[in-house]
Formats: sequence, structure tokens, C-alpha cells
Amino acid sequence: MLVSGGRRLLTVLQAQRWPFQQCRDMRLVQFQAPHLMGPHLGLESQAGGGVINLNAFDPTLPKTMIEFLEQGEATLSVARRALAAQLPVLPRSEVTFLAPVTRPDKVVCVGMNYVDHCKEQNVPVPKEPIIFSKFASSIVGPYDEVVLPPESQATDAMAHVAGFTVAHDVSARDWQMKRNGKQWLLGKTFDTFCPLGPALVTKDGVADPHNLKICCRVNGEVVQSSNTNQMVFKTEELIAWVSQFVTLYPGDVILTGTPPGVGVFRKPPVFLKKGDEVQCEIEELGVIINKVV
Amino acid sequence: MLVSGGRRLLTVLQAQRWPFQQCRDMRLVQFQAPHLMGPHLGLESQAGGGVINLNAFDPTLPKTMIEFLEQGEATLSVARRALAAQLPVLPRSEVTFLAPVTRPDKVVCVGMNYVDHCKEQNVPVPKEPIIFSKFASSIVGPYDEVVLPPESQATDAMAHVAGFTVAHDVSARDWQMKRNGKQWLLGKTFDTFCPLGPALVTKDGVADPHNLKICCRVNGEVVQSSNTNQMVFKTEELIAWVSQFVTLYPGDVILTGTPPGVGVFRKPPVFLKKGDEVQCEIEELGVIINKVV
Repeated sequence: MLVSGGRRLLTVLQAQRWPFQQCRDMRLVQFQAPHLMGPHLGLESQAGGGVINLNAFDPTLPKTMIEFLEQGEATLSVARRALAAQLPVLPRSEVTFLAPVTRPDKVVCVGMNYVDHCKEQNVPVPKEPIIFSKFASSIVGPYDEVVLPPESQATDAMAHVAGFTVAHDVSARDWQMKRNGKQWLLGKTFDTFCPLGPALVTKDGVADPHNLKICCRVNGEVVQSSNTNQMVFKTEELIAWVSQFVTLYPGDVILTGTPPGVGVFRKPPVFLKKGDEVQCEIEELGVIINKVV
Repeated sequence: MLVSGGRRLLTVLQAQRWPFQQCRDMRLVQFQAPHLMGPHLGLESQAGGGVINLNAFDPTLPKTMIEFLEQGEATLSVARRALAAQLPVLPRSEVTFLAPVTRPDKVVCVGMNYVDHCKEQNVPVPKEPIIFSKFASSIVGPYDEVVLPPESQATDAMAHVAGFTVAHDVSARDWQMKRNGKQWLLGKTFDTFCPLGPALVTKDGVADPHNLKICCRVNGEVVQSSNTNQMVFKTEELIAWVSQFVTLYPGDVILTGTPPGVGVFRKPPVFLKKGDEVQCEIEELGVIINKVV
């Protein structure tokens, strides 16, 4: 079920500070055209106008918006010169517009951020932003189709697994459970909250991924000790499930769950503090060791 | 507040199918060493052993795990030959281990996926996986520090904004609100659920991003019509807020909210259906047009 919800104004972050300059605005686009190989960077000549090919103007420019933004003022000034240079304009009918940004590291979303939208729902205006996210794989171009997903069946899911490793899913429980509209994202995603490693152990090297001892030690004391045979949904089922919603790419990571002993459910609860050393170990895969600072 | 929670077994997806082969397991790593420039790909010689430099064995191999996985069996077979070749092994003390995967498109997480973990909380074992996510920016290496974030202040937030564009935050409301443990992620992140564009309009081209008409039409009928002056938290505040938790990268996208008129709150509710054409428009930024199929 889909709703005709939410157009959202969005901002795209740039590496360097973006100097305020009184100059003509630029409408940066990613596009394709039949005579060009692959995606290119361009400028709309005006809102709804044709496209100036920035990569033709300067072949040293990157072809993706992310790389363009990473270079900051250096690439921006080239684009400004292109806009001033009276270059040929590809008619709009001859180009395909891609999303202006593809595969960003994050798509951060804000819930309940219009006063009038809160009134419509008869809910109080939030005192703090409610943050949720989309995966970058949900991005499509400005005129692309939105696909209502069919029921799908993922077969042979394990054939798409490269291997296994150890992760520590660090949580800020107050942020996960009490704030941010009870959306878990923020409490889970602070920088450094996902230690991984030490190696990606290829699948053929693991006799049975669903029968491995898994344990966690804090300052040498065992706080979690279980076995992956306790998993409710096995790897194959999880891949099949997630694939119903999103396309999985090479390198995508699935953290498949945590066993009992987590500090928040202890009586009294136990939380990590500065100076603690946490060891997470899974049989055959290895151990990761992370100090809390 | 942090908890000593969750080591999670994880899987890393690979582009091509991963042929089952009876051979020595491989422990793939990303590492750095003082005599090498930047990250390299390697193999642990054994669990807890030294590192074989795959990029020295074959300089044509990619230096990141994502690219390595994208090439599938082609690169994997090179790694297998390296493991068999009795190559020099860098002592563990001379290398820095990075996470085996960095900047994946997704970090998918599964909640409540250990039977014994459910019992500990006295909650029923879930009938469907509960999916949440972390941003890739939360990944650190196997021996890196976990940082308890200090109170931080983001100043001059707008200086980091490159520009603005239009987004349609498509939602599958049943998935967002009723299923998946009420975590919104799944209902928001189906493939194609984030149309963007048509252009990234640079900041200097927008007189006041917080005073723009914003509207949505379904099959020509206006269903949402408001102004960005209704935003509860302005762009600067949102950037400052999110920056408290995560590092924002060039190209990161923030969808800053939706105004009233969304279908789910209509009486009776209205949902998108196949064949609908949705136009989302923001003054000065442009219009995106997406057909539902």
C-alpha cells in the first residue's frame, strides 16, 4: 500500500565550505544521451531547459556528482565558467535525466517537520527532529517510474553470500528506545558504532554458519555467550526477506542478530563506559577488540 | 548511554554467485602498512596470523573489498592462487587492520533474531524479521576505538550545503506503520521509492530555501500545497542535529520533511495505485514527474 506522501526539500552536502557568491545559479544534473557513453555531469541551461555537457567542456571533470562535490570550489568554478561560455545546449528531448546524486553514503530523512503536517495529524510539533533513513538504492531519476513491488521469491539465497565476519552492534540505548520517535536509527549509527572484522571469511571456509559459538566479553568478563543455532531467521531467509524490498549490492552487510546478555536487559542494567574493552568473538571467524573512549 | 550489546554474525554479499568449492578457506582483509600507500587488500595467513598482500601478488587487483567482490570469481581465483603460492607474510604487528568492508551501500540489521535473546526479554519470537539499519559511516576496524560522542556544536551549518533539489519520499504505509516492529525503514526504502531531481540547484541560486512553495499533484489534482516556511526545523538546525551523531559526507542527502495532504491522513485515506502520475514541485527548484507502475 502506498501513499501519495511527501515531497521533501533536500540538501546535498559538499566537502568544502560553499562560498556565498552573487552569481547566476547553477542547476547541476547527471544525465545520459544516446551519443555519450554512460552517465555525464551537466547543467540545465535554465529550469526546464536543455543540458550543457560539463564533461565535454572540461574532460578532466569527474562524471559523477559525488566526485564533483568532493572537489568543492575547484570543480564548481569550472561549472561556472561553462555556464558563462555560451556552449551548445542538448535539447531536453535528447537526454535522460538521472537523479542529481546517486549512491550517496546516506539518505537522511526527517519526520513530522512541517507545522501544518503536524496539525493535520493532531499531533504535537516535535521538540527534536525525528530522523529516519532510506537506503541509497531507493533513489531513481526525476522522471523514472515508481515500482509497486510484486510478491517476489528469492531462491538460492546463500549462493549470493561471499562470506562471514564479526560485528559489534553498538547501541546508544537512550537514543534507540526513548528518543527520536522510537526509530532506532540514531542510537545505532553514531560514528564508530559498527566495528567489523578482522576478516571476511569466505563461505567455503565455514562448515556451518548456523552452528558457531558466539560470545562477548567486557573487560575480560563473559557477558554474552550463545550459538548461532539460536537464530530465529537463518541467513538464507534473511536474504530472501530483505531482497523483497531492496536490491542488494556486492559488499552489502547484514548484521544477523544478537544473543542474550546485552547490558540493557541485565538487572541492574549495565552500560559501556569510557575505558571498557569489548571483545566480540565468533567461532571460526575470529575476534574483534574495541576500546570505548 | 551505551550497552554491551550485540555481536552480530554478518554476511557480505557478492555480485556473482559464489561457487561452492572444497578448498582452503580464505580470510580476506583490508589493511594498511607503513611502507604501503593507502588501504590494500590482503589475506590473513590463518586466523590471528600475518597478512599476505594481494595487491603485491597481482597489481591489477582492486584495492578495496567492494570492488574485489564486484568482480566475483575472477578476483577470487587470484586470491586462491595467492594463498597457495607461499608468499611472504607481513607480521601482524606491522599492519593496521581496517574493516573488511568499508562504505557499503547498506548495513542491514536484524532485531530480535536470537531465540534466547527473545526469552531474556520475555517477548515473543518474531514471526517476520525486524529490519533496521546503520549508516556505513558507523563502520570502524576490528581493533579501533568506539567513541562515546561528546556534546558537539555545529556552527555555520549552511556553509556545508551545496544546493537543493526536489524529492518524493514514497512510503508503503502498511510496512512503515504496522509491520517491521514499527521501524519505518522498510516501508520507506523499496527500490525506486526516492525519486530526486531534476537538478541540484546551487545554494546561491535560491533566494530563501525556507520560503518556497511546495506542492504535490496526483493525476493533475493538487493533493499537497504548502510552503517551506512551515518547516519546524530549518536546514541549518537539521544539519547541526544530524552532525551530532554522524559524519556527513559530500553528496549526502537530507530530505527535510513533507507538508500536509498526504494520502494516509485523508478521510477516507488515499493511496497511490498503478497508473497514477505524481508531480512534486518546489518553487525555484523544479518539478519531478513519476509514474507508478
